[in-house]
Amino acid sequence: MKTLKIPEATIMRLSVYSRYLAEIDRKGIITISSGDIAEGVGVSPAQVRKDLAYFGEFGIRGVGYNVKDLHRNILRILGLSNEWSMCLVGLGNLGLALSTYRGFKERGFSITSIFDNDPGKIGMLIDGVEVMPVDRIEEVVSERQTQIGAITVPAVSAQMIADKLVKSGVKAILNFAPVVLNVPPEVELRNVDLSVNLEVLTFNLGGKMA
Amino acid sequence: MKTLKIPEATIMRLSVYSRYLAEIDRKGIITISSGDIAEGVGVSPAQVRKDLAYFGEFGIRGVGYNVKDLHRNILRILGLSNEWSMCLVGLGNLGLALSTYRGFKERGFSITSIFDNDPGKIGMLIDGVEVMPVDRIEEVVSERQTQIGAITVPAVSAQMIADKLVKSGVKAILNFAPVVLNVPPEVELRNVDLSVNLEVLTFNLGGKMA
Repeated sequence: MKTLKIPEATIMRLSVYSRYLAEIDRKGIITISSGDIAEGVGVSPAQVRKDLAYFGEFGIRGVGYNVKDLHRNILRILGLSNEWSMCLVGLGNLGLALSTYRGFKERGFSITSIFDNDPGKIGMLIDGVEVMPVDRIEEVVSERQTQIGAITVPAVSAQMIADKLVKSGVKAILNFAPVVLNVPPEVELRNVDLSVNLEVLTFNLGGKMA
Repeated sequence: MKTLKIPEATIMRLSVYSRYLAEIDRKGIITISSGDIAEGVGVSPAQVRKDLAYFGEFGIRGVGYNVKDLHRNILRILGLSNEWSMCLVGLGNLGLALSTYRGFKERGFSITSIFDNDPGKIGMLIDGVEVMPVDRIEEVVSERQTQIGAITVPAVSAQMIADKLVKSGVKAILNFAPVVLNVPPEVELRNVDLSVNLEVLTFNLGGKMA
């Protein structure tokens, strides 16, 4: 069912829909319309229908969607029926924030190892996970068959860390360092720049204030 | 020039292009092709041209773009020719990471006040900014004419904080709490969910492994 044509914005909205469906499901609601989903997450009903239509027919005309089924289907599409194992490299403020972020575990992402080079941090336990030195990445990540590596080190060290993660066999890298990384094409790379979110805001403000 | 039809993904890519152009400009390079920009940031040359075309004609056919001009134009489009004043509410790990994030200042976003309710944190100085109690938000934010509020408190308190920020007159809210907030339509709201980025990765992995 998946094709390369699905816009990333659709994937990001599916992620938002699924969180909303989880909330609705907890309230015991059985069926929901695209209009209700749209209102709940702040997009248009047509957008909801278009996003879902990429993946098949989930709803029944005039009745709506079964909440549990739609939720389960979206989680499957997003690859969240599995548990994902993740390592985190760089335990600064951002690394600490991510390693204790409840949202990850709720969505099936477990942080199974944490690396840093600060002797004051090595040996610390973060939610039961021991902080290890960076030179153990290759050994530990490949042994534990970790699929995803998150990089929260300073820009200057990020490529070196990415190289180690690639050698360890991770399938995907989530990079928070403000630098363009080179990884082989078989490794999925996603850069997260926290300022980008602010800039979408200021762009929108410009439009409103003009 | 701005219309409501510009996709958010274009705005996010402009933000990425501008960072790359800043880097190229520092290296003393005068002109650049859409192909070079595309390679530098990892998108297709056609995408670069399409994104820039929303805002007019910046390049010269066969010559490319003047790096400084294009950079300046993109910053203007993104609303970054101005300085933006921002307050941050909630000094947990994520709040601490954001309040010391260099990327914000580089892009013209200054954190001018920080609020938290923990007596152990009130009075602390973070990069020269004093941490104040949450009940001073309305007074301080309106007095300093802060335009943007960043919310990094737990989900349960986020709406209460958003209400305070709205009353203080902020124009935009960047919400990191995993909850849907209600704000009046004149206030720009943007939700940042750190798991969404992971889910785009796992969706893409699903496609590759299938």
